[in-house]
Amino acid sequence: MKVLVVGANGQIGQHVVKQLQSSDEHTVRAMVRKEEQAEELKKKGIDAVIANLEGNKKSIVKAAKGCEAVVFTAGSGGKTGPDKTLLVDLDGAVKTIEAAEEAGVDRYVMVSALQANNRENWNEKIRHYYVAKHYADRMLQASNLNYTIVRPGGLLNEPGTGKVNISENMEERGAVPRQDVASTVVAALPEENTYKRAFDLISGDKTIAESLKNL
Amino acid sequence: MKVLVVGANGQIGQHVVKQLQSSDEHTVRAMVRKEEQAEELKKKGIDAVIANLEGNKKSIVKAAKGCEAVVFTAGSGGKTGPDKTLLVDLDGAVKTIEAAEEAGVDRYVMVSALQANNRENWNEKIRHYYVAKHYADRMLQASNLNYTIVRPGGLLNEPGTGKVNISENMEERGAVPRQDVASTVVAALPEENTYKRAFDLISGDKTIAESLKNL
Repeated sequence: MKVLVVGANGQIGQHVVKQLQSSDEHTVRAMVRKEEQAEELKKKGIDAVIANLEGNKKSIVKAAKGCEAVVFTAGSGGKTGPDKTLLVDLDGAVKTIEAAEEAGVDRYVMVSALQANNRENWNEKIRHYYVAKHYADRMLQASNLNYTIVRPGGLLNEPGTGKVNISENMEERGAVPRQDVASTVVAALPEENTYKRAFDLISGDKTIAESLKNL
Repeated sequence: MKVLVVGANGQIGQHVVKQLQSSDEHTVRAMVRKEEQAEELKKKGIDAVIANLEGNKKSIVKAAKGCEAVVFTAGSGGKTGPDKTLLVDLDGAVKTIEAAEEAGVDRYVMVSALQANNRENWNEKIRHYYVAKHYADRMLQASNLNYTIVRPGGLLNEPGTGKVNISENMEERGAVPRQDVASTVVAALPEENTYKRAFDLISGDKTIAESLKNL
């Protein structure tokens, strides 16, 4: 599969790009916002395109053309205000969903947030962030794409363990290394059992492959 | 029709409540956020309920029970930040859509904003507001309700003229008195020609009734 990674320069995105690049099954196209980011990637032999989630949808459609899947792992980040949350995490995400549809890309994996589906469990301090993720997910579910929504718990920078706990509605809270989130996204890409499904993800004791098959 | 007005204390909401209250066809239930607002309304003989768009959906479902229509004309207002835009104008609005469905209310009229459907025409300075309105509207369109989405241009406080220009995709920009927005909402309520439709609204030269029939 040729995979467009949206947010390729982000902390999860970098893992996803690396894993796709070293995979035998996939090739990667990294979508980034800045010229210098694209240059860095090209130096490493990675196909890179420049497109801005706050800009015109056409450039995203162009980036998606010729790909077979889109992975969305962009985020406005903690440094910007709630206006950027609306523009990037919600409207930007939906532009990529529409772009996938318009470019004829059928497969879409969204990196969301633990329990973004469930208002009762939103962190009060960043409630606006959950609203943005919630509606981006719902717009994806209303699309015609073969989507998978991965909702990880607290994101850690420590190395991945390859062992996770996956559930459509996780009762417990937990954390997970970004590397394992990336591995789950990449493993989910060809896994038809995850099509039109959404799940919470934290660290656990089962392999990623087994967890996705038993979803 | 018994109509729940969400945002009954707002500038358009007050007009809607007044018009429904003096109508022979309708009765009104005003939904407000504060106890003192409810007391004020009750003194005028208006049925009022307290529910918070940022709170639990259950209180909104309770408010909607026994009504035959919901009018949404709440807004976080210009004084609050984009975080409230997400929480009130988007998530709050969608809670009322879900509440209508859960309470068995079939008819829903949304007050949106001119060209909220069209990213190309969003005011750059309040782009986050358009994002919130856009997705609230799209969630309503994805619901099973008999909805009407009214997208007024610049809102004026001068008295209404009763003459408007209505179009599913308005090429021109324009303004409209809040009183005329309210009159259009009230006139649309029983007008089946407006079910599952969305339109822009500015001042014009045709009567509201005629404009809605010719939509």
